[in-house]
Amino acid sequence: MTRPDLRVEHDLIGELEIPAGAYWGINTVRALQNFDITGTPIAAHPALIESLAGVKQAAAMANRDLGLLDEQVADAVIAACLEIRQGRLRDSFVVDVLQGGAGTSTNMNANEVIANRALELLGEPRGSYAVVHPNEHVNLGQSTNDVYPTALRLGLRLAVHDLVVRIEALATSFERRADDIGDVLKLGRTQLQDAVPMTVGQEFRAFAATLREDRARIDEVVPHLLEVNLGGTAIGTGLNAHHDYRDLVRHYLARITGLPVRTAPDLIEATQDCGVFVLLSSMLKRYAVKLSKICNDLRLLASGPRGGFHELNLPERQAGSSIMPGKVNPVIPELVNQVAFEVIGNDLTVTMAAEAGQLQLNAFEPVIGHTLFRSIDRLGRASTALATRCVDGITVNEVHLRAQVESSIGLVTALSPMIGYERATEAARLALASDRGVLEVVVAEGWLSAAEADAAVTPTALGVPTRGRR
Amino acid sequence: MTRPDLRVEHDLIGELEIPAGAYWGINTVRALQNFDITGTPIAAHPALIESLAGVKQAAAMANRDLGLLDEQVADAVIAACLEIRQGRLRDSFVVDVLQGGAGTSTNMNANEVIANRALELLGEPRGSYAVVHPNEHVNLGQSTNDVYPTALRLGLRLAVHDLVVRIEALATSFERRADDIGDVLKLGRTQLQDAVPMTVGQEFRAFAATLREDRARIDEVVPHLLEVNLGGTAIGTGLNAHHDYRDLVRHYLARITGLPVRTAPDLIEATQDCGVFVLLSSMLKRYAVKLSKICNDLRLLASGPRGGFHELNLPERQAGSSIMPGKVNPVIPELVNQVAFEVIGNDLTVTMAAEAGQLQLNAFEPVIGHTLFRSIDRLGRASTALATRCVDGITVNEVHLRAQVESSIGLVTALSPMIGYERATEAARLALASDRGVLEVVVAEGWLSAAEADAAVTPTALGVPTRGRR
Amino acid sequence: MTRPDLRVEHDLIGELEIPAGAYWGINTVRALQNFDITGTPIAAHPALIESLAGVKQAAAMANRDLGLLDEQVADAVIAACLEIRQGRLRDSFVVDVLQGGAGTSTNMNANEVIANRALELLGEPRGSYAVVHPNEHVNLGQSTNDVYPTALRLGLRLAVHDLVVRIEALATSFERRADDIGDVLKLGRTQLQDAVPMTVGQEFRAFAATLREDRARIDEVVPHLLEVNLGGTAIGTGLNAHHDYRDLVRHYLARITGLPVRTAPDLIEATQDCGVFVLLSSMLKRYAVKLSKICNDLRLLASGPRGGFHELNLPERQAGSSIMPGKVNPVIPELVNQVAFEVIGNDLTVTMAAEAGQLQLNAFEPVIGHTLFRSIDRLGRASTALATRCVDGITVNEVHLRAQVESSIGLVTALSPMIGYERATEAARLALASDRGVLEVVVAEGWLSAAEADAAVTPTALGVPTRGRR
Amino acid sequence: MTRPDLRVEHDLIGELEIPAGAYWGINTVRALQNFDITGTPIAAHPALIESLAGVKQAAAMANRDLGLLDEQVADAVIAACLEIRQGRLRDSFVVDVLQGGAGTSTNMNANEVIANRALELLGEPRGSYAVVHPNEHVNLGQSTNDVYPTALRLGLRLAVHDLVVRIEALATSFERRADDIGDVLKLGRTQLQDAVPMTVGQEFRAFAATLREDRARIDEVVPHLLEVNLGGTAIGTGLNAHHDYRDLVRHYLARITGLPVRTAPDLIEATQDCGVFVLLSSMLKRYAVKLSKICNDLRLLASGPRGGFHELNLPERQAGSSIMPGKVNPVIPELVNQVAFEVIGNDLTVTMAAEAGQLQLNAFEPVIGHTLFRSIDRLGRASTALATRCVDGITVNEVHLRAQVESSIGLVTALSPMIGYERATEAARLALASDRGVLEVVVAEGWLSAAEADAAVTPTALGVPTRGRR
Repeated sequence: MTRPDLRVEHDLIGELEIPAGAYWGINTVRALQNFDITGTPIAAHPALIESLAGVKQAAAMANRDLGLLDEQVADAVIAACLEIRQGRLRDSFVVDVLQGGAGTSTNMNANEVIANRALELLGEPRGSYAVVHPNEHVNLGQSTNDVYPTALRLGLRLAVHDLVVRIEALATSFERRADDIGDVLKLGRTQLQDAVPMTVGQEFRAFAATLREDRARIDEVVPHLLEVNLGGTAIGTGLNAHHDYRDLVRHYLARITGLPVRTAPDLIEATQDCGVFVLLSSMLKRYAVKLSKICNDLRLLASGPRGGFHELNLPERQAGSSIMPGKVNPVIPELVNQVAFEVIGNDLTVTMAAEAGQLQLNAFEPVIGHTLFRSIDRLGRASTALATRCVDGITVNEVHLRAQVESSIGLVTALSPMIGYERATEAARLALASDRGVLEVVVAEGWLSAAEADAAVTPTALGVPTRGRR
Repeated sequence: MTRPDLRVEHDLIGELEIPAGAYWGINTVRALQNFDITGTPIAAHPALIESLAGVKQAAAMANRDLGLLDEQVADAVIAACLEIRQGRLRDSFVVDVLQGGAGTSTNMNANEVIANRALELLGEPRGSYAVVHPNEHVNLGQSTNDVYPTALRLGLRLAVHDLVVRIEALATSFERRADDIGDVLKLGRTQLQDAVPMTVGQEFRAFAATLREDRARIDEVVPHLLEVNLGGTAIGTGLNAHHDYRDLVRHYLARITGLPVRTAPDLIEATQDCGVFVLLSSMLKRYAVKLSKICNDLRLLASGPRGGFHELNLPERQAGSSIMPGKVNPVIPELVNQVAFEVIGNDLTVTMAAEAGQLQLNAFEPVIGHTLFRSIDRLGRASTALATRCVDGITVNEVHLRAQVESSIGLVTALSPMIGYERATEAARLALASDRGVLEVVVAEGWLSAAEADAAVTPTALGVPTRGRR
Repeated sequence: MTRPDLRVEHDLIGELEIPAGAYWGINTVRALQNFDITGTPIAAHPALIESLAGVKQAAAMANRDLGLLDEQVADAVIAACLEIRQGRLRDSFVVDVLQGGAGTSTNMNANEVIANRALELLGEPRGSYAVVHPNEHVNLGQSTNDVYPTALRLGLRLAVHDLVVRIEALATSFERRADDIGDVLKLGRTQLQDAVPMTVGQEFRAFAATLREDRARIDEVVPHLLEVNLGGTAIGTGLNAHHDYRDLVRHYLARITGLPVRTAPDLIEATQDCGVFVLLSSMLKRYAVKLSKICNDLRLLASGPRGGFHELNLPERQAGSSIMPGKVNPVIPELVNQVAFEVIGNDLTVTMAAEAGQLQLNAFEPVIGHTLFRSIDRLGRASTALATRCVDGITVNEVHLRAQVESSIGLVTALSPMIGYERATEAARLALASDRGVLEVVVAEGWLSAAEADAAVTPTALGVPTRGRR
Repeated sequence: MTRPDLRVEHDLIGELEIPAGAYWGINTVRALQNFDITGTPIAAHPALIESLAGVKQAAAMANRDLGLLDEQVADAVIAACLEIRQGRLRDSFVVDVLQGGAGTSTNMNANEVIANRALELLGEPRGSYAVVHPNEHVNLGQSTNDVYPTALRLGLRLAVHDLVVRIEALATSFERRADDIGDVLKLGRTQLQDAVPMTVGQEFRAFAATLREDRARIDEVVPHLLEVNLGGTAIGTGLNAHHDYRDLVRHYLARITGLPVRTAPDLIEATQDCGVFVLLSSMLKRYAVKLSKICNDLRLLASGPRGGFHELNLPERQAGSSIMPGKVNPVIPELVNQVAFEVIGNDLTVTMAAEAGQLQLNAFEPVIGHTLFRSIDRLGRASTALATRCVDGITVNEVHLRAQVESSIGLVTALSPMIGYERATEAARLALASDRGVLEVVVAEGWLSAAEADAAVTPTALGVPTRGRR
């Protein structure tokens, strides 16, 4: 005899008692027992849950149209899916983000929650699987192997969309600062050695431009995410799915998501292939590399104040030291660097998981999905933090920068076409040895007149833009 | 005028209102604003919090003995630290595990919580920093740059200890199965091709042996974790710490933790160096590589049942498919593989963060610490899951294995010394072509008598142990 | 007094004696002394040398047209570049592939060789730099910082072109085998467990399809490689280049290479950015992941012969063992796996080098370039080896495969829609326990008639293609 | 009929013509055809060839003693091995460093060369394998699976020995510079922000100390490299090796190499395990991380001369720019950074190859061995280049450094214990805002007398060593 607060379910292994009020069922409980690993439930990736419910809804619609699913059952399933897509029942998605079984536990968690919510909507007690069965009705014509990767792709597309907006906002932040403080002349540097002059605006616009390129590369992954293997069932042969199901379910999925979802041309290939995940991860890694480089530059340009580059002032965000009074650190760029290191490590995790796929399936899609969602979320938050808590408040030490340009040895480059590479080399050496400026040396040596020298280092001659946009 | 449920604190940036009941203060609040990145508070790494409180307690004891800290204040601080070490106040450790500032926010979170709890113990209202100041009293003679890495090392040592126990338990599981099912003869394979016979026990004992080697390598990191830079303060010069403080604080820290904590010989080096973290991460990665290889083997040996190796039966843990009835998947090894991929990716994160250190400090220790704690925790849970939910229940298909050995082409290797490499090669070819056994062929060709052939393939002749331990 | 077999050159550091017959000069000699690291000269990457000579030729043409370079000198320089592009003088490109200086040594090696060959063509002795100067004439209007990345990109485009042809050939090999042996029915497997039936052709065509996707992704990098920063000189401001030079040199470079070379819209960004290299490396890594997965599958499917999957026979390429007569190993897939591991490691090298760029330049482009050329070359050779020495000769063990399908538990999936998921689960269990086929069980249990059961497992019902292309 | 300049050999695949003068035989030729991948022969790793010949020599001695190998044959084989160990016949080791077959081709290349050289010494024509057979005599009692990893380990030990000497020399270089220029006071920096004072000597000695730690960690791998699986033959069971062979061959191998070679306790485990390679690779990676960090620091400290840190002057090694006259770049540290990136990438290659081992063998040891030898060689050369071409010539800009310390805001830290953290914070703010020194501010505000302030910032008070060693 079961207690009233419990119901009994069974599977191929045996029976288990389930809390009577739980929407999930026995497969979910087994998964909770088996996969006690991260403490993070799949609900932590809302885009995945939303997309999975969308796939289930589309399948129910298709099966209903094909006469495979009773109208009343179909309507209840569809209603349950809609609720989930709208954000309800999320605390019933409890299995661990890391799980064996190629996503079967995620799929079964969804099947069980949808079945029991549908039963509830039909006025039936939970667990009445003769009426609505997680496998036979909710999962009809489906396999984890087509449902899960499809939901993963659509979910990632949602997450990517948010990220792309944040990257654009960061690029815009750099551009706005370029508008405000961009005319200031400064030293360009190559290999950390003084090179030739440029403006702060050129430097900041280059950051904006490089971020926009990453935005574009990430955007280009989206069409690949929209190519799905839904309808392939277990291994891509479509076994157990109705002949017309594949097209119909794609049609409904496109309608539900409002996206041009396509069915992959080779479903066998699409079922086992993780190429799109490697592609996405690579583009996230590329963005992380760029972000890290930019933050390295910001920290370097803000180094000092007395013993560093002292070009930029990052906005003060918190006291920087428990022992050194008045010290303020570049905490936001440091945060972003660390996110970049995480994302680059994550790319390796995805790479290894993708390489480990065998024959008709990659069993390691759960770690791939979890890792990608985490990378995207981190990069998005880091981008926004960098824009709003750092870049937007950057100021520049104009006087210091101008003095550096004027004392720079690199100015000799602009004189080189007039006096020759070898004489210019000599001028550089003399200037450095005697702590003078190169213009002064060149004039003193009689290689150029003062007027000739001055004319060679006007902003126009140097190729740097003056007032107004470049 | 402040509301009664708020108190006002200030720092170099300005003032902020703090909930009156909060143990944390303004530095913690700024950190919460700045670092909204993972949603995971530092309390998620209890070993870090415990160790940090231990360091603070040791510092208070040392400063008290040196007459730098008022006895009453010292006692209150020590009491607060003790409480934290015992697991209290953990929900006050709220700053994000990922943070800029080289751990300053973690340190200040601790300083503030300890100060306010000490104030409470002294009967003073929170925020009465004239009595107990987070920086001037709790952090006396310390810098984040020596406190944080010291706490990180000791915390990691705690976590490593737990992991090592779990690895040993996993090795023991393999060994117990070797005792039970180890006498079964089976084919050894090299490069996935049939090689020569061995026993299941030899295979399982090799797993145990290799795990124990990893256990030993991880254990060997512990002494390095116990070498700390406490007393070096900001950059290792010990500025602002009393001449006798360094030894005294080490003494108390050793007493509190019960561990042979040592002060690093070169504190400048010890303050900037992340070598021990790279070392630990590498050993975790090595263990992940081994675990993954073992799980790959288990999945391979359990492949089938009809179209695979079908050597081992892993215990059934859950229904394996939403579409294929009766399918049971190797979900636990698959889980462990995924953890391994995560840990290998994490090692890259640690590597990059370590490489990015600059001059007298590595600003990226927070991501290093967080990543290492995560790797250790995951590996520990995965090891236990593998032992208790998989290895302990493995059975073997003895008849199938014996038949494979008897039909194996590799048996010809044992005949090779008698008939020569070239004739043995010919026998292998003939056996394969005619679907016969090699013994049969060799006898049929008249190269050996039946008795000679049989004698060559007894377990003893094959070098495999019989009944009893190897 | 210098010996007749030596000439003296000088630079900012001092004088050096150069072998009189050497085309290279003092900068090359210093580089040889400084960078004794791999033993591999830059000539090992012929596509780089060819492209670098093309850039130099285009620059000479542009400078000639602009009246900046004497016609006679220009013609000699152009002639020298043409010779190099045709494959001559390659043994004069001697500096190490790994070098500090952001490619300056490669550029100067080229400048010196071109200058001295031009001098020779003009009837002047080598080292007569007053007539043709490596910097003032050959490098006129250029900087290593625009010349080197431009040559690198165009060189990589050449190498990529060759790789793409080889990938296509490998895909075609799989497809041809699918045509020949593709009708054979076999077990599909998910998570290494028997799943549902498919054909060898479906498996091989999926390999071809996935390879073609990688081919497409790699091809899509090409337009990005054709966007160059030539004309930007030192940091992208174009300092020291004539106003009309940028367009003119691009025009000539496009004409020389026959490719739609474009000038990057933001030359500051283009000079410091390594995004395209990360992109290319990522796509190479993706291809390596796919290749490795395919080779893992081939090795698995060819495992045995008696104790493995024994589905495929890879062509015998060499004796597999020095001790086990008759053993033949899957040496070609093993080779390709190793190349994949190298390429995946190389991607990390490129990633780290790209991340390490600072301010207006990435000083680490030499290791990026070298590593990418190596990855491309290895992948190309590995692809061809896999096609011609393995895939083209694969045969299949048809009888064995058919028997596996017929005995497969997975067939119950096809019966599941008729008898229900739960009864199908029971049939699977009974079949396995009693070593029977599932059809036999289902009929014996009276759940289906023999005719119904048979009809459910025809190829058509299973969704697998019969004779003819799918 | 064969031509006189050719001889015919056969294997299980068929016959091949071999150049009559070649020491290698048919297995080598097949390997050359199969593995045309890197163009680098195994002779490029002399330590591997030397060790492999040592293993073969030890085996011949053991088999001779056991009466399994004819004395005359044994003597000839031993003589051939000795020659190879002394550096002869190296151009006969021609198979590609990357090869399928788990090292079988390397082993067979050695077997064939030794057999044919032994035949030559016996006055027999090459190919007379009835007299000395590559497999039956040279490879007697051996398998590639024990011979190859044993040779690899001993070869790596040789290479590691050389590396360790070079690391020590680099540490000594830093220490010598610390002796010479170490007393100069300079700013310490944390998070690239000015922190508190230290000396150049402290900075350089920290570099030396950290390098010596890496040296020690690498040294600690050596005992693990000396634990070998020789005697295990194919899979570790010792099949086909004489009962007493294992101990005897170890005895001879130890005598030949002069090293305490040990036999692994579990030969099954030792045959399949790549843990020691992952361990070594990890320690090489760790050293690469340290080297890279040090080179990053050197480049940063040498940045400028006018717009950077301008602390150190690295010796000029070559002209740094083809366009910017007088520019000198930190080419040696840049070179070392790139080597570090390569080695870190190589570690990933080793990791993946180790993880990919299956069952009783890791088929991917060739890429592991090649990659490790390459990493060690690169790190060794890079270390020496850094020591001799950079560190030994470093000078310091003493006046500039002293001025930075005196103007540093960080000095306020030393005053903080006297005036309190909050007032010290205020002093820092005032100094920065008014471009004054903090001492001046503190005195002006009346918080300390001039004498008190001065006393707080003497080197002794700051914890920095004065004249003489620290």
